Amino acid sequence: MASESGKLWGGRFVGAVDPIMEKFNSSIAYDRHLWEVDVQGSKAYSRGLEKAGLLTKAEMDQILHGLDKVAEEWAQGTFKLNPNDEDIHTANERRLKELIGETAGKLHTGRSRNDQVVTDLRLWMRQNCSKLSALLWELIRTMVDRAEAERDVLFPGYTHLQRAQPIRWSHWILRRVGRGIVQGCCGGAVTEGRAPGALTSALWLPNSHAVALTRDSERLLEVQKRVNVLPLGSGAIAGNPLGVDRELLRAELNFGAITLNSMDATSERDFVAEFLFWASLCMTHLSRMAEDLILYGTKEFSFVQLSDAYSTGSSLMPQKKNPDSLELIRSKAGRVFGRCSGLLMTLKGLPSTYNKDLQEDKEAVFEVSDTMSAVLQVATGVISTLQIHRDNMARALSPDMLATDLAYYLVRKGMPFRQAHEASGKAVFMAETKGVALNQLSLKDLQAISPLFLGDVSRVWDYGHSVEQYAALGGTARSSVDWQIGQVRALLRAQQA
Amino acid sequence: MASESGKLWGGRFVGAVDPIMEKFNSSIAYDRHLWEVDVQGSKAYSRGLEKAGLLTKAEMDQILHGLDKVAEEWAQGTFKLNPNDEDIHTANERRLKELIGETAGKLHTGRSRNDQVVTDLRLWMRQNCSKLSALLWELIRTMVDRAEAERDVLFPGYTHLQRAQPIRWSHWILRRVGRGIVQGCCGGAVTEGRAPGALTSALWLPNSHAVALTRDSERLLEVQKRVNVLPLGSGAIAGNPLGVDRELLRAELNFGAITLNSMDATSERDFVAEFLFWASLCMTHLSRMAEDLILYGTKEFSFVQLSDAYSTGSSLMPQKKNPDSLELIRSKAGRVFGRCSGLLMTLKGLPSTYNKDLQEDKEAVFEVSDTMSAVLQVATGVISTLQIHRDNMARALSPDMLATDLAYYLVRKGMPFRQAHEASGKAVFMAETKGVALNQLSLKDLQAISPLFLGDVSRVWDYGHSVEQYAALGGTARSSVDWQIGQVRALLRAQQA
Amino acid sequence: MASESGKLWGGRFVGAVDPIMEKFNSSIAYDRHLWEVDVQGSKAYSRGLEKAGLLTKAEMDQILHGLDKVAEEWAQGTFKLNPNDEDIHTANERRLKELIGETAGKLHTGRSRNDQVVTDLRLWMRQNCSKLSALLWELIRTMVDRAEAERDVLFPGYTHLQRAQPIRWSHWILRRVGRGIVQGCCGGAVTEGRAPGALTSALWLPNSHAVALTRDSERLLEVQKRVNVLPLGSGAIAGNPLGVDRELLRAELNFGAITLNSMDATSERDFVAEFLFWASLCMTHLSRMAEDLILYGTKEFSFVQLSDAYSTGSSLMPQKKNPDSLELIRSKAGRVFGRCSGLLMTLKGLPSTYNKDLQEDKEAVFEVSDTMSAVLQVATGVISTLQIHRDNMARALSPDMLATDLAYYLVRKGMPFRQAHEASGKAVFMAETKGVALNQLSLKDLQAISPLFLGDVSRVWDYGHSVEQYAALGGTARSSVDWQIGQVRALLRAQQA
Amino acid sequence: MASESGKLWGGRFVGAVDPIMEKFNSSIAYDRHLWEVDVQGSKAYSRGLEKAGLLTKAEMDQILHGLDKVAEEWAQGTFKLNPNDEDIHTANERRLKELIGETAGKLHTGRSRNDQVVTDLRLWMRQNCSKLSALLWELIRTMVDRAEAERDVLFPGYTHLQRAQPIRWSHWILRRVGRGIVQGCCGGAVTEGRAPGALTSALWLPNSHAVALTRDSERLLEVQKRVNVLPLGSGAIAGNPLGVDRELLRAELNFGAITLNSMDATSERDFVAEFLFWASLCMTHLSRMAEDLILYGTKEFSFVQLSDAYSTGSSLMPQKKNPDSLELIRSKAGRVFGRCSGLLMTLKGLPSTYNKDLQEDKEAVFEVSDTMSAVLQVATGVISTLQIHRDNMARALSPDMLATDLAYYLVRKGMPFRQAHEASGKAVFMAETKGVALNQLSLKDLQAISPLFLGDVSRVWDYGHSVEQYAALGGTARSSVDWQIGQVRALLRAQQA
Repeated sequence: MASESGKLWGGRFVGAVDPIMEKFNSSIAYDRHLWEVDVQGSKAYSRGLEKAGLLTKAEMDQILHGLDKVAEEWAQGTFKLNPNDEDIHTANERRLKELIGETAGKLHTGRSRNDQVVTDLRLWMRQNCSKLSALLWELIRTMVDRAEAERDVLFPGYTHLQRAQPIRWSHWILRRVGRGIVQGCCGGAVTEGRAPGALTSALWLPNSHAVALTRDSERLLEVQKRVNVLPLGSGAIAGNPLGVDRELLRAELNFGAITLNSMDATSERDFVAEFLFWASLCMTHLSRMAEDLILYGTKEFSFVQLSDAYSTGSSLMPQKKNPDSLELIRSKAGRVFGRCSGLLMTLKGLPSTYNKDLQEDKEAVFEVSDTMSAVLQVATGVISTLQIHRDNMARALSPDMLATDLAYYLVRKGMPFRQAHEASGKAVFMAETKGVALNQLSLKDLQAISPLFLGDVSRVWDYGHSVEQYAALGGTARSSVDWQIGQVRALLRAQQA
Repeated sequence: MASESGKLWGGRFVGAVDPIMEKFNSSIAYDRHLWEVDVQGSKAYSRGLEKAGLLTKAEMDQILHGLDKVAEEWAQGTFKLNPNDEDIHTANERRLKELIGETAGKLHTGRSRNDQVVTDLRLWMRQNCSKLSALLWELIRTMVDRAEAERDVLFPGYTHLQRAQPIRWSHWILRRVGRGIVQGCCGGAVTEGRAPGALTSALWLPNSHAVALTRDSERLLEVQKRVNVLPLGSGAIAGNPLGVDRELLRAELNFGAITLNSMDATSERDFVAEFLFWASLCMTHLSRMAEDLILYGTKEFSFVQLSDAYSTGSSLMPQKKNPDSLELIRSKAGRVFGRCSGLLMTLKGLPSTYNKDLQEDKEAVFEVSDTMSAVLQVATGVISTLQIHRDNMARALSPDMLATDLAYYLVRKGMPFRQAHEASGKAVFMAETKGVALNQLSLKDLQAISPLFLGDVSRVWDYGHSVEQYAALGGTARSSVDWQIGQVRALLRAQQA
Repeated sequence: MASESGKLWGGRFVGAVDPIMEKFNSSIAYDRHLWEVDVQGSKAYSRGLEKAGLLTKAEMDQILHGLDKVAEEWAQGTFKLNPNDEDIHTANERRLKELIGETAGKLHTGRSRNDQVVTDLRLWMRQNCSKLSALLWELIRTMVDRAEAERDVLFPGYTHLQRAQPIRWSHWILRRVGRGIVQGCCGGAVTEGRAPGALTSALWLPNSHAVALTRDSERLLEVQKRVNVLPLGSGAIAGNPLGVDRELLRAELNFGAITLNSMDATSERDFVAEFLFWASLCMTHLSRMAEDLILYGTKEFSFVQLSDAYSTGSSLMPQKKNPDSLELIRSKAGRVFGRCSGLLMTLKGLPSTYNKDLQEDKEAVFEVSDTMSAVLQVATGVISTLQIHRDNMARALSPDMLATDLAYYLVRKGMPFRQAHEASGKAVFMAETKGVALNQLSLKDLQAISPLFLGDVSRVWDYGHSVEQYAALGGTARSSVDWQIGQVRALLRAQQA
Repeated sequence: MASESGKLWGGRFVGAVDPIMEKFNSSIAYDRHLWEVDVQGSKAYSRGLEKAGLLTKAEMDQILHGLDKVAEEWAQGTFKLNPNDEDIHTANERRLKELIGETAGKLHTGRSRNDQVVTDLRLWMRQNCSKLSALLWELIRTMVDRAEAERDVLFPGYTHLQRAQPIRWSHWILRRVGRGIVQGCCGGAVTEGRAPGALTSALWLPNSHAVALTRDSERLLEVQKRVNVLPLGSGAIAGNPLGVDRELLRAELNFGAITLNSMDATSERDFVAEFLFWASLCMTHLSRMAEDLILYGTKEFSFVQLSDAYSTGSSLMPQKKNPDSLELIRSKAGRVFGRCSGLLMTLKGLPSTYNKDLQEDKEAVFEVSDTMSAVLQVATGVISTLQIHRDNMARALSPDMLATDLAYYLVRKGMPFRQAHEASGKAVFMAETKGVALNQLSLKDLQAISPLFLGDVSRVWDYGHSVEQYAALGGTARSSVDWQIGQVRALLRAQQA
């Protein structure tokens, strides 16, 4: 070998060992987070070995006992890492050997770090997805509570950041919450060229008339479903040759399924990519909510005010109170997506089965999990404690936002919508020209535009009346908003059941 | 206005209209692909208007008839675009008016382009997802057919691109195909802190013993489920104020559900982002398959040979035959992910409801759909016509790939695996030192390493025997490979049912 | 071959030719944009062949003449593509042969499409970079003109979107424009461990007192410098064996340099990645400017109003005027970065030298170039015609924005800043408690906070006085803003020289 | 405030302080890396304050002394963080106050954390870029040394991973090294519509005949140039109102320039984005080199062998030696690009000046810097100690790789290249049909294809002769490779000067 011959081509001297390479290669700095699931997986595996006759009952008990000791040391913070513990698997097995002797050497029989690490990661992520799901629902519940309590508050709805139409504040809140309610989905064929029942029975809510989860929660469950598949028993590449019963391993570790192909099992990281994308999309939603609240909290809008607990001051400007919490939420959309992006690039074009490149998966998962946990909790705190300024919201409604309703007034009198839209546009222009608000035009003014305008046009200018018109499902009328709240509450109950 | 006062601050002169802006703003160049679904959506909407009393039966019939005419013109290539047709909605309504007169002006009543365009896009994507799903299954079927026919071919399995263990060629094929079989998923609680039944009944296969789809197909169905939700009736932001029955619209257009909140309905593009990510992940898989086949097709590996139909020559080097098809598949992983990446960045931090930024969604969807369609078909063609060189595959198996089996031999004799691994490592080193193949070591040589080696060690050197040991579910033994084929065939049947 | 034996493994039937593969492989649909530079490159190459003795003078003339004909046909739109013209190189050479016969077959001597296509692309991009540079400077000039004309307009500066301090409107404009002025850069060592002169003389402006370009322009020039390197003469991989003089080719095509290594020359796409990243970063800047202007154009801010030429109306709401131009600019940041992202993923992990994956480069370049061209022109139009509402800007200034100046008042009287900051904070709190504006506190009120407050504190409340304090280079005082304008004008002159 | 009224909308309880928010907001965990540059910046700033008359000489000395103490504590690891030290600036100022009392409160006069943090980051990055540059050149030097020593080794050059033409091993090494040599760049106009001298004198090597840096090094210098610009004195947004001399600050901190506009200075992170992209592109290069070496190290290629120091074994398979070092290098391309991608998404669409979102910059910079440092060192180690198998390389050359040279043989005899290419193709086909190597065809065989073949065709089959033909600049002939080495050595000397 080159390192033996001492022949070096320029470059830094490298002996048998390069400390920078060792550090570069080592994963213990982060995969130590897996200590608990690593022990859990090893315990299950030792039961599998016993059933396969590769461990005696006594050996198994010795190993199980030893592993419990190892876990105890981690839990109590007394586990001591050795310099040679390059990863959590090595560390735990090394310690087990110190505790119980040579029998420890039987634990890895038929197992490879390739199937071990991915089992660990799946166990960890399964647990983590449950935690994130609970935090997500806590946020949803907070928002629905607010939406219900404040459902009589009106304020401007914006499109293109231009005032569009009056809406309920709760309608805004709910847009962030519950989405995509299944209505009688069993009724018909869903997709071209597919029998009606197929999709419904395969993937949709089986025998329900009602409820879907919100989309982020729904997607997280789908990811979790694919996380929850057991790879253990796949060895390094070819599988397990020693008769280990993978169904027993699955049951021991409470997985929902086992992987189908050992080559795939040890080298696919779809479940990681999916998790990172789930987080990216969820963060995109939260970034948009944060953007709105930052705007609504400007002096110019003055619709909302953050609690002090979620604001910070300036080291220079004494009067400042900045919405740092919301800005951080917005910014994390970038960070989280960066991790997703990075992993996909790492995966692209990799040759078959395990390559060390896959070691990139764990740090991404840990960082994104931590970020999501903090973001969801901070978002809940922000929404919990946000103050709204009802008067400012009301004051921001202006008659020109009712121009659409003015057109509908004419539609109801029989005018085709395109003409009504034009007539209303003329009224807007007339008001601008006269320098008055749209509702200050006299009936005569309006009748100059269309004779269909009568005295009852005055009802158009009532914001409360305006929103109540939007009573179709999903609209901003009180009945529709109540229906939306009801739908999400139903999901919430289903979730907690 | 500035343009009226003629005051210009340097810069190019701009009158009332800037042709570059008009082109920049116009979407007709690509959203014309939506002509058919746009007509479909308008027909359903006119039925909704009739039921709501906003159109008479006669008016509705007039509109329906006119829309059929419009569609006919598109289908026959006779539809003439006007310079002012900035998008497909404008174009179709303009033409309708030319055909049927003022009644056309009633069609848009209570509708906005905001809910119209997203309805169109969902209709288009729903159809497209079905097409891609069929192409995906065509590829899967081709691979399973090959896997079944060639299941007695052995060749080297690689980890880290180093020869690892002998495996079946079919095992390699199948790793690309079917993954994640559900085993008795009803048995236990799936996730921490959740009652056993919850996840199972909510999202998993309800009362089935068997089948899951392959992961990409499964994910595509999930995306399609969320595509298949009706936004029509959400207006621009506040909903529909004219009593249009959204359930009727849903049934007319055969959607599986309706959107819950009008603000969300008009401005969320989750289903687009999900589709783009689905494609990105699927392409990542295909990029890895392509990488393997490119390697296996090098002179050095010589395991496979591409059909001429999927190779190209060189303009300079007469002897070259290049795997362009596979290289293009590999490269498209970048392009497709780029689109996903771009859309997420566009969505990040957008303020509430519709902003023109969302116009970026369609080109991404069309381009990625076209790419996926071509890639899936070319991949199917490549696999259909690929030649394999069995002799080269067999010759590439070498005794050192059985070192793991040598260790297992000792394990079966009672040696703890860690010691057995070390003993086998010594044998490898001894063979290297002696300059012979591992299976050329004499029994005496081996016994110098461990007295547990006996005459029956010779069985270890049989590759066929080696693979047959890996009989646990998911392994490379024939029985396990047959089981894998069976599982995927079951999915295929379920898919076609 | 499989296709000969007719053996098919499921899958679609494929004969000797798969039309989907042909389309998948073909690049003529987009690389036809290279027709002019392809001819240009071929003309230079034929001169190289003549000098090397591989063409007679007569043959060269024949080829040059024929190529001119080819170019003429393209220019006049009479060039007819054949179905077999898979790329522009094939098309042009095919046509040349039709025009001049067998001599055409000598043109490709020693050349490969590998070095030909990258030469074409570099020629195209070099020209395109110049165009984009001109458009960029047009935008900068427009902004500087405005900044100069409107430099007495004050309005609120925001940090965290909260009102921070009064600033000049021109200061806001200029922040988008010129950045990073070199000040006496020759004075000292720039980086650790490097002699002072090294960096300066190597890469910095050699003997200048003044000018740098704005950063985007500077970066574009750097990209262009690396675009402007000749790869022709590199063949497919090994170089040119026929004595072609690459220096002659360089001079003919006016490149600044020649590539150093033929393997690198044919397969590196750094210059493409750099261009795409340049565009991404430039778009990020423009997205931020667009975001500001969208906010400033809301009803709530009402600082600016877009010209009608850059706004659009609503199909539903008659009163709406939406800033579509700015929203499209903002959104394109995503699209452009998506292309950059996609290309980098395509490049990652590619094996040495040319692989077909590199074919992804051209569509990215063309699309991004078109987008940048439109965006820069539309942005120039927007800025040219934007109306500002000076009164609203002035009204938005509020005394609390002077709290920092209040602290500075105390600092000037000798109080340490930390105490002054606290004292000013107390004044803010006192004003809030009393429900008055900060400048409505009586001198007595202020003196209760600190005895250093005297009658001259009243000067603090003058916004004009406030901004004039910020006279350090880069600040918002008139002198500093003038200096900034001067710096950018100097760059502009240098650019036009 | 909501938190005072105790009104909570569901959600977790939050008092005046939310510990999760505090942790979310705090940056001390990572920005503590800036301790040294933060002290450095503060020392310079206190000199500026003294010159401006805001500190007495004695106060300044007190502060300078105190800051030295603070630095000493950090250096010795005795600095104690308080729970309230949310960032490094707060921590250092807090400690300074403990050490020297109230005078410490004067240090922040006219400064904001907005200009302070970006000054710190620029100082840190400037230093770090120098370190990375040195490591990059160490790698380059190692490669050039190898290239020089092994320049007589031939092996196959690949395109599309198919054997293409014989090349020198050194040619392969050098393709990774030095690129884009400027040749007489002063001779002519570089770009359309620009006077010849403009680009040359502005950005190119001013009066040099020779050298360019390699591209990655060149780009890093350009980034460093833009890093090396002083923002201090920009305050929070409006600038500095107290007469601080920014030129003095620049000189104190040895920056090359000062920022032009205070709003821009505090909120632009171009230099961060550029650095992250620089790293991404550099990693893309290294990922491609790693991919090649991984392939060349497979059993099938067997061209190279990694030193044990850069390989690892398998926990299961005793015979394995895996190229983990190269796989990690390849994988980091994804991670690094993910950071670049994430930052750009974070920046997109941000409103003007400082927003807390910008806090995302530092972790990205630190992580990427660490990664680059490790990758460059490990790559140097790998190249230093790599063993090559010359015999295997030689054996891998095959006569069909000379088919191009066979065509050139005919070209030299006067046949147009297109015909020669076809004739050579016929020879390849004939050899395949006869089942012999290309060089085994008899002269008669060849003459059946073309009468131009004569006895001297035998020289074609000499690989050494083949490579020597490629003598044009950049080719694989020895003279050309020597020239390449010379060019890079010249750069190296310039770099070290």
